[in-house]
This record gives sequence, C-alpha cells and structure tokens, in this order.
Amino acid sequence: MTHHEPAAVTVLGLGSMGAALAGAFLAAGHPTTVWNRTPEKAAPLVAAGAQHARTVDAAVAASPLVVACLTGYDDTRRILEPATATLAGHTLVTLNSGTPADASELAEWAASNGVRFLDGAVKDVPEAVGGPGTLLYYAGDAEVFAEHAPTLRALGGDTVLLGGEPDLAKFYESAVGATLLPALVGFFAGAAAARTRGIAAADLVPYAVRWLQMIGEIVPVFAAEIDARDYSAGASSVNLFVAGADVDLEFAREAKVDDAWLRPLHDLVRKAAAAGHGEDSIAALTEVLRTA
Amino acid sequence: MTHHEPAAVTVLGLGSMGAALAGAFLAAGHPTTVWNRTPEKAAPLVAAGAQHARTVDAAVAASPLVVACLTGYDDTRRILEPATATLAGHTLVTLNSGTPADASELAEWAASNGVRFLDGAVKDVPEAVGGPGTLLYYAGDAEVFAEHAPTLRALGGDTVLLGGEPDLAKFYESAVGATLLPALVGFFAGAAAARTRGIAAADLVPYAVRWLQMIGEIVPVFAAEIDARDYSAGASSVNLFVAGADVDLEFAREAKVDDAWLRPLHDLVRKAAAAGHGEDSIAALTEVLRTA
Repeated sequence: MTHHEPAAVTVLGLGSMGAALAGAFLAAGHPTTVWNRTPEKAAPLVAAGAQHARTVDAAVAASPLVVACLTGYDDTRRILEPATATLAGHTLVTLNSGTPADASELAEWAASNGVRFLDGAVKDVPEAVGGPGTLLYYAGDAEVFAEHAPTLRALGGDTVLLGGEPDLAKFYESAVGATLLPALVGFFAGAAAARTRGIAAADLVPYAVRWLQMIGEIVPVFAAEIDARDYSAGASSVNLFVAGADVDLEFAREAKVDDAWLRPLHDLVRKAAAAGHGEDSIAALTEVLRTA
Repeated sequence: MTHHEPAAVTVLGLGSMGAALAGAFLAAGHPTTVWNRTPEKAAPLVAAGAQHARTVDAAVAASPLVVACLTGYDDTRRILEPATATLAGHTLVTLNSGTPADASELAEWAASNGVRFLDGAVKDVPEAVGGPGTLLYYAGDAEVFAEHAPTLRALGGDTVLLGGEPDLAKFYESAVGATLLPALVGFFAGAAAARTRGIAAADLVPYAVRWLQMIGEIVPVFAAEIDARDYSAGASSVNLFVAGADVDLEFAREAKVDDAWLRPLHDLVRKAAAAGHGEDSIAALTEVLRTA
C-alpha cells in the first residue's frame, strides 16, 4: 500500500449509520469489507463494490482499520470476542452510543488485547456522512489517529481528535448533546399549544429557528461566565426567569399543555435564586446543577 | 405632521429595554417623550434629545403613539388608569412580558376606553434594538399597525404583524420561547459535567453552537410531521430516545450532575412509546404533551 492508494477498511454493523459509513468509504475509493449480523443488509453495498465477509473474523482480517457501528459497547465486545486474536495489531474505531465509562472500558479491553483503539461519534445524520462539512470527533492515541485520519476523513470533512483520553468523544457527545431532548420538548410543547389554538407548527418555525440561533449566539457568553465563575454581568438574570416561570405555567394551563416537564426546570431556577444568584446571569444555574 | 417628518412617540418605562426603545426612536429622529417611575433614569435620554414628562398624563398627551415597556399588564394598567381620558384616541403599544390572556384583557380595557391598541414583543436583547435585522412582532388591528409601522420600524428592521387577535404576540412569544430555558439548562448541565472533568465550558461551545444549529435544521421537518399528524417517517425515533435515556442518566451520575430536570423529559418519551409511538418520530411527543 502506498500513500496514493486508499487504505482498506472494514465496517461492522450495517444499520442506517453503518451502511452510510461503508458507502462513504466506497465512494472515496477505499477497498471496503462489510459484515452484518443479518447478511441481507450487505447486498446494496456489495452492489456498490464492497466485499462481504461471512464471519467477523474474516471481516477483521481483511483490513488494518476496523470501524464498528454496532448497538453499543457491550454488543461490540461480544461480537469481537471470537476475533480478538485476529484484531490484535489492527485499529478498532467504535462509532456507537454509550457513556464515557463504557468507552473507557472498551479501551482497556482493546489495550489488554494488543488492539489499537479510537472511539468516535458521528455528529450528524446518516445522509450527511461523507459531506465536506460533516463533523466526526474522536478520542484516543494521537499517533493512531494521525495514521488513520486520511481514511476517516472519507466520513466527513470535519474530522477532529478531541484528545488522548479514550472516553472524550462520549463525554463531549453527552455534554453537548444535553440540549437536544429539552430543546425539542420545548418546541413540541409550543407546537401542542399552537394546535390547541388552531395555529400550525409550521407557522412557529421561522421564529423558532431564529430563536435557536439566538440561543447559539448567547451560549459563548454564558460559557465565559461559567469558566470565570463570575455571573455578575448577567443581562438575563435568574430573577427574570423566576418571574417568567409563572407566565410559562399560566400559558401551559391556557393552552392545555402538560407542564410536568417544565416544573423541575423552574425548581432549578428558584434553587439558584435561593442560593443568592437572583441578580446573577442565568448561567449561574451551572453552580446548582452539580451534585458534588 | 407630513409623511416626511418622523412622528412623535412616547415611551413609558425606562428599564434596560425601555431605554433602548427610546434611544432607537431618538436615533431615527422621532420627537420622543419619556416617563419613568424613578425620573433619574430619564437623564441620559434627555441628554440625547428626549422630552421628559413629569406625569404619565403629560407623557400620554405628548404623542399619538404611546409605547409602554413596564413590568407587566397589571402594572401597565395601574400606571395608565389616571391618564385613561387622555389616552383615548391615541395608540397604546405594549412591549412587556405576560400571558396571551393578560394581553387580551388589556385589549378589552383599551377598547372600552376608546384606546387603539397593539401588543408586541421584542425578540432580541436591548443592545440589538434599532438594528436592521432585529425582530419585533405585533398583534392587533391591521389598520392601527399600518399607521404606526413606519415609526415602529425604528425599533427593528424586521417588524411584523402576526394577526388581528390581540393576544397573538404573547402566544407566539410563549410558544416559540419554550425552547429557551430547557435548552439552556441542557447546556449548563453539560458545562457542569465538563467542570467535574476539568474541561472548560468554552471547549464545548463550538460543538454546542453547531448542535443548536442542527436542531434548527430539523425543526421544520418535525413541524411538518406535527401538522400532518404523521410521524411514521421519523429518522429520530422515540425508541432511540428511550434507549438514550439510560445513557443520559448514567452520564449525569458519572459526571456528578443533577438529573432531576431530565427525568420528566424521559417520562414523556416513555409515555409516547407506551402510547404506541415507539417507532415514530420523536415529534410524536407533541401528541402526549396535550392535556386536552
């Protein structure tokens, strides 16, 4: 293999994301071997030029780089267990969900079996895999990353190593991803209220999108306050949100929308006010969110 | 007054937002009269060319258009009550927080006193007031809006009438604004976890901003599902979030972050799954969020 020849790669797990990964490797000209528990899923990729391995051991043997996109770390380990000897000396990259502790545990297993290891996360939908702006971040050994980055970049133009600790990708994924479900529930609650009123969710969209953009613009300001632990310059004070809580609940009542998800958020705001953060920035909530 | 001469306007309430409104009217050349409960706050605006009214009645008498930026509707009504006779025939625009029902109530009071009325909301920070892209939306009579829009546009280039029902601005404000507190708490929880780990909140920012942008990109897709009440094409299924709930809680435990705010969101996700929406899009949460 020379520097000019795309490196061989194996993809384990051909769900919608795994299939997108394999497709992107193929599109970039990498000799690609695929394996899936239910072999039928390999057919479209084989049609696109992939090699289909019948066993995990054969799949692992086929490439120096093995990308696993299975359900979770337990699943990954169980599936790789019979191929451990073959995997030794190869690089395993896991792109599945899980906790930082789970990622660390798999990293230890890999190290104890002579397997080079990176854990990563695809920060976009399967349809975006292979795009020039698509973000994937990884955690693990910098040398291993440097060696495989040219291949991994086939999955997304924005391919980043977060650091050497193998649980960092999962850490960032959970820490950054924590806005998703709450923001969506907020939007769905607004949409539910709109329906009560005979207003289409689509009518809220331009304003909702703009509002999310505004949140994105203030997040760096809040981050600076959090890192300095100085919340005194806060334009959006905790007390402002305390006052807003009654409006939120009255709105939910008028619009006949469940407010059970909202009340613990208000509890946090009041807890911050009670802790003396009333006139501080709402970012002071960070202080009361820690349990240790 | 000709079409070429900027119309006179009065601003009641000179908190940070009220002062910004008065400053924007002055900057656009409108003869501007200001009033505030504590008169000291008028000084910088008087220095910039504003007239300072000693009484609410004098302030109201000074301009055909009266913009009130007071604490809430009760406060607004209490302050305007002694000037009701003077206000008759003028246009009152309220730019304060409150519920749709509160706005409707003030609209009724205005109508019964011969006061023309618009309710609105400034969808940005005080610093942005007067900017070409700054959004303010209003609700109320289209003719009243058309007459004063040239003046109101001094507050923000994106000046919109949502519709004739006077509570619509407050409705949109609550429905659209419902993403703010939950999204921020999500970010603060991530930042609290990062601090436990020795990672700066600033390190999360580029990814958090990008994530919020991604949420903004999927919101229109969810809105279409909600309006069609067809959640069957969902790429981000309810079951995916059910599976994610355990990861969320385990992450919060590892990172020593309070999860009390998170659990009711998971309850909603499970409620949707139990209602048969497991394989549907997460937007199906809209169906279980309605209490009527």
